[in-house]
Amino acid sequence: MAMILGLDIGGANTKAASSDGTLAQSIYLPLWQGAPLGEALQSWAELDPEAVAVVMTGELADCFPSKLAGAQSLISEVKKAFSCPISFWGTEGFRWADPRDLAGANWSASATFLCREMGDGIFADMGSTTTDLIPIAGRPLAGKTDYQRLARGELVYTGMLRTTLVSLLPAATIRGESIPLSAELFAIAADAYLALGDISEDGYSCATPDGRGRSRKEALSRLARSVCSDLEEIGEEAALAIAAQAREHQLRRIVSALHRLSAKHGLAGVMAAGVGEMVVARAAALAGLSCRRLSQVYGREISNVLPAYAVARLLESQRESR
Amino acid sequence: MAMILGLDIGGANTKAASSDGTLAQSIYLPLWQGAPLGEALQSWAELDPEAVAVVMTGELADCFPSKLAGAQSLISEVKKAFSCPISFWGTEGFRWADPRDLAGANWSASATFLCREMGDGIFADMGSTTTDLIPIAGRPLAGKTDYQRLARGELVYTGMLRTTLVSLLPAATIRGESIPLSAELFAIAADAYLALGDISEDGYSCATPDGRGRSRKEALSRLARSVCSDLEEIGEEAALAIAAQAREHQLRRIVSALHRLSAKHGLAGVMAAGVGEMVVARAAALAGLSCRRLSQVYGREISNVLPAYAVARLLESQRESR
Repeated sequence: MAMILGLDIGGANTKAASSDGTLAQSIYLPLWQGAPLGEALQSWAELDPEAVAVVMTGELADCFPSKLAGAQSLISEVKKAFSCPISFWGTEGFRWADPRDLAGANWSASATFLCREMGDGIFADMGSTTTDLIPIAGRPLAGKTDYQRLARGELVYTGMLRTTLVSLLPAATIRGESIPLSAELFAIAADAYLALGDISEDGYSCATPDGRGRSRKEALSRLARSVCSDLEEIGEEAALAIAAQAREHQLRRIVSALHRLSAKHGLAGVMAAGVGEMVVARAAALAGLSCRRLSQVYGREISNVLPAYAVARLLESQRESR
Repeated sequence: MAMILGLDIGGANTKAASSDGTLAQSIYLPLWQGAPLGEALQSWAELDPEAVAVVMTGELADCFPSKLAGAQSLISEVKKAFSCPISFWGTEGFRWADPRDLAGANWSASATFLCREMGDGIFADMGSTTTDLIPIAGRPLAGKTDYQRLARGELVYTGMLRTTLVSLLPAATIRGESIPLSAELFAIAADAYLALGDISEDGYSCATPDGRGRSRKEALSRLARSVCSDLEEIGEEAALAIAAQAREHQLRRIVSALHRLSAKHGLAGVMAAGVGEMVVARAAALAGLSCRRLSQVYGREISNVLPAYAVARLLESQRESR
């Protein structure tokens, strides 16, 4: 059966979804390490889609000398893989002039789709690496570039998995003492969430910082190393304290971003999506906002790859309206 | 001519110095990436030293499952390379029972040596990755483990080169707006110091985050990427503002660590060493403390590899006193 395929090409993960919701897939493909994006695109091309809709954020990966070069490279990779019609979504929709208009625009597809489907609110998509917080009031109101969105608190550079621990938690409190964390890439958010039981080993879908496994013991060891220690040296309780405090700091950061946007735009409802949907829902409750979890509307798999699904749905509508 | 060789095996850099001061060398050997430490040790073995004295911090690198395993591995690498007598320095000196006593003890060799040579003060050694701040009052008074030293402010995990920008500066102020930095490894302290003219391309002796070059333009581009931007997007002035603010934040962090230790131990003088000696000297002035720059006592080359030199001198004294 003919289908519309949506793709969301990120720096760390590339996601695919079909407009009918039967396909929803996320593959860890770290572009800055030269991951085989072409092969993944090829495998989706073999599903023989009728048309492909694409959003991207991967142009920011530092394997590309500039965002323009990154966007051009990703456009060309997609064109190489698919023979069907391809539409790229930028911050102004499917019509764009400069490849830079496509840079970091995946949130825009999700927000445009949700604005139509669900109306006003703060769309909050917490992924492996970043959290998009997009005010929607009649239309998506976010800044057009990543830089503008950082400044406005609409792009919070913190995620469920890849975020380095020291950027979540500059110092941990252990047995009454404040211990500044090492600035090395010794542990990440995924280690904290796995140790706390919030995600499974399967949910730890990015590379581990030390190349070792995803067991609870290995995650706890990485947490201990973040304060320059072995696990035996500080003990499991202390490693768990680091994890709990990192989770708490991240939560508070999202609460305060929600507060700021809710006050600015007079919005009282949140639409939560992404692998960190649960964290967003907790943050919304703490911020005194109502929350709809998009996994309960579209299913968990779609919530995790929402921009890919949204851009497929947007293309489908456009084709139907012609 | 017979010589005593001192080695300081770090996670990122391994340093060598002879007790007569004629050799002083630092090589970028990132152990967690499997750098060829054995080859470097072999090349120093060809200098045919009479004896070798070793300190280490590299056991913390996450290629090792634990500090014990790391220390054992480094001991065995050194023993493989040298046929002359080898002495390892731990926090209690050349006598040690457990390889863990050697972990992170390079500061202890420097401080023991300086205590004898120069008397009381705060020994402050700012390297590529970390800054050791060791109070000396009759003897070195620092905590024995990295964990204890983090807690006591005697190990500040910030350095001249490898420190990620976001851990120096969580948010930059650009044209009146506060812009949180990306939590990616897009730029490091070396980019800030190079852009500001504080270090040369040669002084940028670690790997660049994106694998590109060390030109001023390339460093500025990395600084721009730290706020998810191209250099053309935010402009050189904004990239320099990020660099200046990162430098300022790092300086203030060292000032406050010096304050804390100076007040606690009643010490009014600083002995500054390392590739960041200049930064320590600035911090000492801001903290109202006197400062002796060890490059002016022992020469710049020795100041940059002080633990290697110190441990060689300590071994030399021990041999002479027998």
